Amino acid sequence: MAMSWTTGRGSDLHIAPAGGRGRRAALESALRDGIRTGRLRPGEVMPSSRALAAQLGVARGTVVEAYSQLQAEGYLRARRGSGTEVASEAVTAPRSPRLPRAAAPLIDFRLGRPDPSSFPRRLWLRAVREALQSAPESAFGPLGPQGDSSFREALAGYVGRTRGVLTEPELMLVCGGFIQSLRLLCEALRARGARTIALEDPFIPDHREVALAAGLEVITLDVDEHGARPEKLLRGEADAVVLTPAHQAVLGATLAPERRAEFAAWAAERDAVIIEDDYDAEFRYDRQPVGAMQALAPDRVVYAGSASKTLAPALRIGWMALPPTLVSSVIERKRRVDRGTSVLDQLALAQMIETGSFDRHVRAMRRRYHRRRDLLTAMIDRVAPRMRIAGTAAGLHLVALLPDEPNLEDEIVDAAAGRSLALTGLARFRHDPQESTPGIAIGFGAPPEHAYESSLAALEGLLGEFSDRLS
Amino acid sequence: MAMSWTTGRGSDLHIAPAGGRGRRAALESALRDGIRTGRLRPGEVMPSSRALAAQLGVARGTVVEAYSQLQAEGYLRARRGSGTEVASEAVTAPRSPRLPRAAAPLIDFRLGRPDPSSFPRRLWLRAVREALQSAPESAFGPLGPQGDSSFREALAGYVGRTRGVLTEPELMLVCGGFIQSLRLLCEALRARGARTIALEDPFIPDHREVALAAGLEVITLDVDEHGARPEKLLRGEADAVVLTPAHQAVLGATLAPERRAEFAAWAAERDAVIIEDDYDAEFRYDRQPVGAMQALAPDRVVYAGSASKTLAPALRIGWMALPPTLVSSVIERKRRVDRGTSVLDQLALAQMIETGSFDRHVRAMRRRYHRRRDLLTAMIDRVAPRMRIAGTAAGLHLVALLPDEPNLEDEIVDAAAGRSLALTGLARFRHDPQESTPGIAIGFGAPPEHAYESSLAALEGLLGEFSDRLS
Repeated sequence: MAMSWTTGRGSDLHIAPAGGRGRRAALESALRDGIRTGRLRPGEVMPSSRALAAQLGVARGTVVEAYSQLQAEGYLRARRGSGTEVASEAVTAPRSPRLPRAAAPLIDFRLGRPDPSSFPRRLWLRAVREALQSAPESAFGPLGPQGDSSFREALAGYVGRTRGVLTEPELMLVCGGFIQSLRLLCEALRARGARTIALEDPFIPDHREVALAAGLEVITLDVDEHGARPEKLLRGEADAVVLTPAHQAVLGATLAPERRAEFAAWAAERDAVIIEDDYDAEFRYDRQPVGAMQALAPDRVVYAGSASKTLAPALRIGWMALPPTLVSSVIERKRRVDRGTSVLDQLALAQMIETGSFDRHVRAMRRRYHRRRDLLTAMIDRVAPRMRIAGTAAGLHLVALLPDEPNLEDEIVDAAAGRSLALTGLARFRHDPQESTPGIAIGFGAPPEHAYESSLAALEGLLGEFSDRLS
Repeated sequence: MAMSWTTGRGSDLHIAPAGGRGRRAALESALRDGIRTGRLRPGEVMPSSRALAAQLGVARGTVVEAYSQLQAEGYLRARRGSGTEVASEAVTAPRSPRLPRAAAPLIDFRLGRPDPSSFPRRLWLRAVREALQSAPESAFGPLGPQGDSSFREALAGYVGRTRGVLTEPELMLVCGGFIQSLRLLCEALRARGARTIALEDPFIPDHREVALAAGLEVITLDVDEHGARPEKLLRGEADAVVLTPAHQAVLGATLAPERRAEFAAWAAERDAVIIEDDYDAEFRYDRQPVGAMQALAPDRVVYAGSASKTLAPALRIGWMALPPTLVSSVIERKRRVDRGTSVLDQLALAQMIETGSFDRHVRAMRRRYHRRRDLLTAMIDRVAPRMRIAGTAAGLHLVALLPDEPNLEDEIVDAAAGRSLALTGLARFRHDPQESTPGIAIGFGAPPEHAYESSLAALEGLLGEFSDRLS
């Protein structure tokens, strides 16, 4: 039943009971709205509860309670003497600013993105069910910043078994993905006196941003077909280095064995830290994945992984195997920034790892991405034979190096954007874009499976535009 | 079938095929272990693949592949000339440091902790199922730092309906709980020139730590039975204030209507920001919850809530309704620190809100906590009548003020610890502990439901020890 009444200023307030919450709630809501919108002005005297109750046809107690509630909230106040008046000014409902919002490309070949249609919904639901059935009460209390201990146990087994990482659950920290890992590490290193961090070049630009935000200086290491080159470290003053040994983050090389040894020796000599960003090593196509370099120097290397490529980046779950000397400072930093990472995702992923369904999912995805890679390289070989393909042994992207013609990289990326097709030019990954070798990075993980062939056809159409220069 | 061979140094390496991964994996694993443990030393020449294959009774290709894998990982290297030798030093498996680990108290009356046995496992599972069935593919792609849009829509409706917050989905940010909210806000405010933040005193000490870490100076506001007092703000230079209007974070007062108006007027005049920490307002026992003060000044007040009290702190999910001027800077900061918050928790909670099961859960918990509060206050009135109880109108804790006798607070807290019973003395929540009024804060949310009565009996036993001074 709708109610209405006429304010002292002569305008009508209509009061419609809100879903299931009755007359009092409806009255309160109408009064709040009347005050917020200025139809009831500060100082305006409200009718007595008796009068308003009669006017609305409700019990007097309803009005008394509504007045009392709105007094507690600051909308009304008792008048000197007696009665009730409006206490609060009209309020403009906030309007959201127009945020710059990049339109999502229709066809996505960006780096570091797994197939969003591949998230194993059924397996995940089963894992959540099992986790909810078996989790102890204490899992739902305040969790430690280090992460759930059963998950760390599952993880330590997983990274040991699949990546050769030498660690134990007490040395592991669960966090919100690699960016958070890197931030926690940079801040912990800065706090213990580190000043300079080395990054591979090309790199993921966000990593430089994180290092700089933590107050570190950044130097860069050249990368060739054997991975990052350690020379600059040996003569420099860096306190830490971020490496992508399994699949160089942009160019795709596997870090050569001698280089691994050189980096490890440098870290030992300089008491420095190596951060091993093992971002997509599960997907190795020509052989079994090359083991993590962490095991060569577990006292110097932080091993960092995540489920962003194997399950979904939207899960925001990652992990580190830490050298003993860094464990307590990094955990403490995690406690300070956000207390810990969502426990339910941890419990579910622990289930998936322990039941083997995670490994099965990864194997199935490896087959899927292997096929995608082969289709992509075959297409490029066919329509753009002058593009030299690199970095195909592993991961979710490859690099297509271009003939050295002025502006060709920019032209291709621009033409792609014109076709709502997202590609990334290699210059974007360089510390100094002027030094970049022309080429494009093509992430073949991002298109959903049902759209992969059509996405590839669109890419073929794009490359066809440049056939005079690429074939 | 186990295999074994004798190294050049005369020791035996035993090779047992690892679960399902076959001989090659077992051989690789044995070689890695042999090198890591020093049984195979750097420079030691490995048998030829032919000889080792014969010795082990495996195909020669198996040994060739294993050697190749270990070369890629840096354990072995090709010798000048021919053959293979050990490349890597023995590695000591890292040992975790003994971290200081506080033993969990058996009986937990600490603040801000909901009943861990109350997590609605069945409802959550159903919500996850529905979310997994209905989520679009794009939910599993890289998520925006602001949080899932369908969750923000559900949240904007929820905080509007239950807390009177005036906002819209585009003004909301999903994050990892209040500590992260406060950190993001302090950093964003500092970046735009803020220098000083005011906290209520008593306060949650972690909030001071977060503000200081962000580079802000902290001043404190006195608190009385009407909540925080604004006087010091009016003469001071603060750029922001953290308030707990619904239930002062320790003493439990509801912020009085005139105070709300004074804080809002101060913020408008000084172009300052009010951070409304609405940490447990859902649990109001004497009336319906007092609406958020955000609605009095949505352009100045950040409303911050979380599911830490209504569901579980281990979920690490919280939200803010932001003034339009802060939206883009806080979102950008969230992007930089961790990219976003786990999407699956967001999707599940959105389902719970939209189907009404979240509201039903909150109502059921309110009844549970109401009963607990009544049992607790009745017990205190009975056994310790000289303790004055305050802050009972809402939330998950109350305050028991003590007769002003030297050291009584410390004695009670120490005696409690001796009984594995966790209570907190009020001094711990003061900027200057010397200024504290003696008393203890008792969180009645923390004990699991099945243990509440026995926990209360333990507390009664403790207070009985002090009956000469408390009754």
